Amino acid sequence: MSSEGYPFLKGHGTENDFVLLPDPDGTVHGALDPDRVRALCDRRAGIGGDGVLRIIRAAAIGEPGAGQDAEWFMDYRNSDGSVSEMCGNGVRVFGRHLAQRGLVDPARPVPVATRAGVKVLTFADGAVDGEITVDMGGPTVLGETKVSVGDRAWPALHVDMGNPHAVAFVDDLADAGLLLDPPAHDPAVYPHGVNVEFVVRRGPGHVALRVHERGSGETRSCGTGACAVMVATALADGAARDTAYRIDLPGGTLRITWTGDDRILMTGPAVVVAEGRTSL
Amino acid sequence: MSSEGYPFLKGHGTENDFVLLPDPDGTVHGALDPDRVRALCDRRAGIGGDGVLRIIRAAAIGEPGAGQDAEWFMDYRNSDGSVSEMCGNGVRVFGRHLAQRGLVDPARPVPVATRAGVKVLTFADGAVDGEITVDMGGPTVLGETKVSVGDRAWPALHVDMGNPHAVAFVDDLADAGLLLDPPAHDPAVYPHGVNVEFVVRRGPGHVALRVHERGSGETRSCGTGACAVMVATALADGAARDTAYRIDLPGGTLRITWTGDDRILMTGPAVVVAEGRTSL
Repeated sequence: MSSEGYPFLKGHGTENDFVLLPDPDGTVHGALDPDRVRALCDRRAGIGGDGVLRIIRAAAIGEPGAGQDAEWFMDYRNSDGSVSEMCGNGVRVFGRHLAQRGLVDPARPVPVATRAGVKVLTFADGAVDGEITVDMGGPTVLGETKVSVGDRAWPALHVDMGNPHAVAFVDDLADAGLLLDPPAHDPAVYPHGVNVEFVVRRGPGHVALRVHERGSGETRSCGTGACAVMVATALADGAARDTAYRIDLPGGTLRITWTGDDRILMTGPAVVVAEGRTSL
Repeated sequence: MSSEGYPFLKGHGTENDFVLLPDPDGTVHGALDPDRVRALCDRRAGIGGDGVLRIIRAAAIGEPGAGQDAEWFMDYRNSDGSVSEMCGNGVRVFGRHLAQRGLVDPARPVPVATRAGVKVLTFADGAVDGEITVDMGGPTVLGETKVSVGDRAWPALHVDMGNPHAVAFVDDLADAGLLLDPPAHDPAVYPHGVNVEFVVRRGPGHVALRVHERGSGETRSCGTGACAVMVATALADGAARDTAYRIDLPGGTLRITWTGDDRILMTGPAVVVAEGRTSL
């Protein structure tokens, strides 16, 4: 180590954490080997993270559709090395880094290209370190279903935010137990598995949740899960659009707004805690 | 981030991982606040590690007895912020960094001061990147006891390596189950808790283990645990001193030798994977 290796940063949004790899022209990492992603995300032998965010110009990524309306592309990989479309906590950390480096202007909306299309970020007060809002697009509400853990079962609302969710209101977050295994669900409704949120009310416009993510287990935060929970809660409350909810997750707090034109806006923190070089 | 913050490195030995803080003259961190240690070791909001190794000159640490026979002091902190005496995996990573920086000569024995006295490191082939052997001192064998998990129980050998161990031979490493809770043990024998090793034989001079560390749960590696297992196995084998065993841990392999003059030498890998600056 010292001048060898390549640059990285580490950051998180509500404790959903990422290794960032600056690679503006795609010359540092080429196609980004899945083995390297796994090595970087390994929490003991590597740096550790829920995923990798490669910071690359849209013109350099070489994927169809990228770069139509955004200078920067978020090349997101899961910690298992697989390619993923989008990550609501990750894109805020991505935007924070761009602003800190002076690569975008936080006083104006910042478009970021992803494999799920262009996402627009806005910085609170136009400040480099302001909370960041990302437009997550529209929810799709697909009706009632059921989830269970051991011999306890709850009705749940099926909400799709680009990925599938089952939102269950519970009396106490501890009712879901240790969540070492995926909650049981209807395989006809969720043939590819489901992210399950357990929700309690904390007050008017304020809920708290635990989430079990398919493929990851219980996590400290899930951005799309917080959006799905907001939608389910607003529908249960008969709330009009243009309402905002505070969503407490184990790793922090997000504010979610359902707009009059059916978009979900997610606002939350994003922080870069370290940067350097790695030989991984 | 960028030029702010202070320097750090991250490394591991058999996946027992550490945040290293260069602070040669004690001017960067002062007394090293436990809150800062916890923030650094946080695996999602921080950098992540089982502990922090501050790299400080023995003359600068200001602790009685430090610096008698070693230039460098390993100021080790557990991830919960508490002070600890020694860590056999950590001291190898500490030595690796000193050698990579040219602060010690790997061709000669390297003394490192710790709160458990001076430990001497030797580098295989005298190479900067050679496997590192640390003299862990002498074991104390304290007799037979018993451990259990659920309704299964095993006889165990009580071995003290500066910290207490119970070594149990099992038919299969899976017999110990998920190890979510500390194995049951005799509180009269272990009033302050115990590290429990479950061991299977792999061949002559070769065993594999799982370890439950008091206060940490199941871990990928425990250096003193590997030493205790070697001692228990050698005694069961009626092996003479000056024998070496290969010990496979979930995070890698260590080679342990019990010398003719009753010292335990532990040999294993140590690697620094990243370095940079952090704002934590």
